Amino acid sequence: MTPTHALPAVLQKIDADLDQSLERLFEFLRIQSISTDPAYKDQCQSAAEYVAKDLSGIGFKTSIRPTEGHPIVVGKGSPRANGKAPRVLFYGHYDVQPVDPLALWETPPFAPRIATLPDGRKIIVARGACDDKGQVMTFIEACRAFTAVTGELPLPITMMIEGEEECGSNHLFGFVKDNADEFKLDLALVCDTSMWDPTTPMVTTSLRGLVYEEVRLTCADRDLHSGLFGGAAQNPLRVLARILAAMHDDSGRVTIPGFYDGVKELPPDIKADLKGLDLTPANFLAEVGLKVPAGENDRMLIEQIATRPTAEINGVIGGYTGEGAKTVIPAEATAKVSFRLVGAQDPQKIRAAFHSFVRARLPADAKVEFKSFASAPATDLPFDNPALAKTRAALAAEWGKKALAIGEGGSIPIVGDFKRVLGMDTILVGFALDDDRVHSPNEKFDLTSFHKGTRSWARILAALAA
Amino acid sequence: MTPTHALPAVLQKIDADLDQSLERLFEFLRIQSISTDPAYKDQCQSAAEYVAKDLSGIGFKTSIRPTEGHPIVVGKGSPRANGKAPRVLFYGHYDVQPVDPLALWETPPFAPRIATLPDGRKIIVARGACDDKGQVMTFIEACRAFTAVTGELPLPITMMIEGEEECGSNHLFGFVKDNADEFKLDLALVCDTSMWDPTTPMVTTSLRGLVYEEVRLTCADRDLHSGLFGGAAQNPLRVLARILAAMHDDSGRVTIPGFYDGVKELPPDIKADLKGLDLTPANFLAEVGLKVPAGENDRMLIEQIATRPTAEINGVIGGYTGEGAKTVIPAEATAKVSFRLVGAQDPQKIRAAFHSFVRARLPADAKVEFKSFASAPATDLPFDNPALAKTRAALAAEWGKKALAIGEGGSIPIVGDFKRVLGMDTILVGFALDDDRVHSPNEKFDLTSFHKGTRSWARILAALAA
Repeated sequence: MTPTHALPAVLQKIDADLDQSLERLFEFLRIQSISTDPAYKDQCQSAAEYVAKDLSGIGFKTSIRPTEGHPIVVGKGSPRANGKAPRVLFYGHYDVQPVDPLALWETPPFAPRIATLPDGRKIIVARGACDDKGQVMTFIEACRAFTAVTGELPLPITMMIEGEEECGSNHLFGFVKDNADEFKLDLALVCDTSMWDPTTPMVTTSLRGLVYEEVRLTCADRDLHSGLFGGAAQNPLRVLARILAAMHDDSGRVTIPGFYDGVKELPPDIKADLKGLDLTPANFLAEVGLKVPAGENDRMLIEQIATRPTAEINGVIGGYTGEGAKTVIPAEATAKVSFRLVGAQDPQKIRAAFHSFVRARLPADAKVEFKSFASAPATDLPFDNPALAKTRAALAAEWGKKALAIGEGGSIPIVGDFKRVLGMDTILVGFALDDDRVHSPNEKFDLTSFHKGTRSWARILAALAA
Repeated sequence: MTPTHALPAVLQKIDADLDQSLERLFEFLRIQSISTDPAYKDQCQSAAEYVAKDLSGIGFKTSIRPTEGHPIVVGKGSPRANGKAPRVLFYGHYDVQPVDPLALWETPPFAPRIATLPDGRKIIVARGACDDKGQVMTFIEACRAFTAVTGELPLPITMMIEGEEECGSNHLFGFVKDNADEFKLDLALVCDTSMWDPTTPMVTTSLRGLVYEEVRLTCADRDLHSGLFGGAAQNPLRVLARILAAMHDDSGRVTIPGFYDGVKELPPDIKADLKGLDLTPANFLAEVGLKVPAGENDRMLIEQIATRPTAEINGVIGGYTGEGAKTVIPAEATAKVSFRLVGAQDPQKIRAAFHSFVRARLPADAKVEFKSFASAPATDLPFDNPALAKTRAALAAEWGKKALAIGEGGSIPIVGDFKRVLGMDTILVGFALDDDRVHSPNEKFDLTSFHKGTRSWARILAALAA
């Protein structure tokens, strides 16, 4: 029985097993695998073990590969007769974002539950419900259904589920490079992106890159009383404010010298397509309480979030931040700053330019230390890759609507390495929605995204195997 | 026996009782009376009770007066025959600053100890060792010695020891106003200021005022993923950085419209005196690790810290500030900002001008909330007050060196009210040193400051009573 012939039965199996699929997902969601915080190291290990055990149960040959950070789960499975089906690498991550501010969660972040929205949509609520545990499980559940119905996977699949995506994938790059022969397959698949809207599927054909930096400024060798020293002592918060404020000009353009090197203008026809989508503040920003696009003021909203580079301040701390008043001039101030990259922007050059930009603005008595986190260039999928057409057709069949092919604003750093190191294109299909509160309190994943996402992957796998 | 006749015996008594004086101070220092943090409410009450009990032991008629915040200790005592001695009000505070960052303390902040510096100076180390428990106890010990030797106080003294100085003295103003008849005496004395240097005593003849504000900016109604929304969503940290950076121009001058209204130039002769002090970065800033004055660049260092107004950022927090990287656009950002005022600057006008300054810089989608803490104008002591000459003479007798009369940069808000509400001038004498780490980890008070400070007060009280 070919995967195409088996597909109707596989879809039926997915529908019939939905409750058990959710139980498995909930078990996964209960594991507090916050990768960026060392306090959760054991929980990350538990999440890796959970995934490995689950994949073994479907017949994957599984291993938990240690790194200097959190481990990477690798699983390999294949049908008895390969034919000419492409060998695919599926990439996802078992780690999740921190949960702060915890007080804003309506229920505990690691106690998953089903809830119903006022508009009747059923949702899965938990940290990681969408990013990326819920999305990863749509793929695993599709594999499971195929195996249950046909006794084997529809095509050769290697799974790579890492545990450091939310803190920069620091050890994945070396792992892929060191084991390039093992992972040099025909095509990569990733499920960590969004739908265009709740009824319109989408293949993400470009991703912004990322550079993430921490800047720590110090001045005096201790905290000072602002009455005694105020006026004479350099204040690192003031220095930091001036640096951060200087990163953008009044038009919203980033001012760091050389920042836009490698940024190309979109071809007019693609730009017209983007304009045709009619993404407006009312249908994109309003749902998070905003009204006016804050990016480069000569760009469409869709460009600002998908095809233009950005500089963003992700966190600042310094001085007294408790309740009440303290008249202190702090000894230090710290900011986390990140850049989304597009086109051929070079992460190393951007990082160096940012460091120079900061150093050039240090007054006497201010010293700086940098910590570098993630660094990845932007990536693009060629529009003529045949897997793209097959995937779009499969998605259209499931959702009854043409699947868009479009760039997205987020970064999945490893996708660039799949291309550069392993020579593989990546098909990015995901079922997140704009209101999923990814990285925020009360993260959710629509039950429809989970269910029809699983069905979508079954269809995509059958299409790729044909 | 007149106070003047008793003085030699009183000074002898102070010397003989130094160890017991230190034991009493240590007991006071062990009380964790952090007023700004509601978690320490009971400890503030304990500190008030400690002071009240100690004063009662010297013969003061004592009461613990409740406020809506921490209570105020009032003690009243008088010699049997008043003569024409002035009735004095002594003001101090039993509350202390928070101890963060705790990790930088070499020993626990509320476990006082005597240590020896490399240069041989003996110091008392603890939060509050100087500000203001150590300083308050110099006055109380002087009173105790007089009572022990003569059986009574040298002149009529009313004690007012409050518990909210470190968080804005919010309830003291109303208390003084509501009980003006009780406290309308001849002269106020305060022990919460510094020496010029370890061997040069000083009367502080002017104090900068203070306005302390908290600014909270909000944009989106939740934290956002910078990949999905970055470029389009307004970031409150970026708005905050631009506002804070705009508060000073490149010359170090505050840019808030009207900020300098009421700031007078010093008379040329006073300015010459200040210049003669030759306060240099090497002898003022170097000991805290700084080299270059950061204030208005056309002003002397002594002006920057003592006679010019300032705007200072005391704390900033927003977004992800934990370990590692999180690609978030935060929903809110908060800053604490304070202003030191001089001359006739009006706190209410400064506050209003700052609010307008912030509101004028809010882009679309940014909202602001303000919290107002302390607010007090600057104060000056007339140079012709006869108590000033007596005090300077008494200090000179103790330290063997002319006592300076000079302005200081810190704020003691109630001093302004003593003048406006009670019609009293205030003599500010203190024994703090520049390296006391006031408000910082490892706060200390020189044993010499404590011992000779006590002797100084005995001499001042005798001089005022004569």
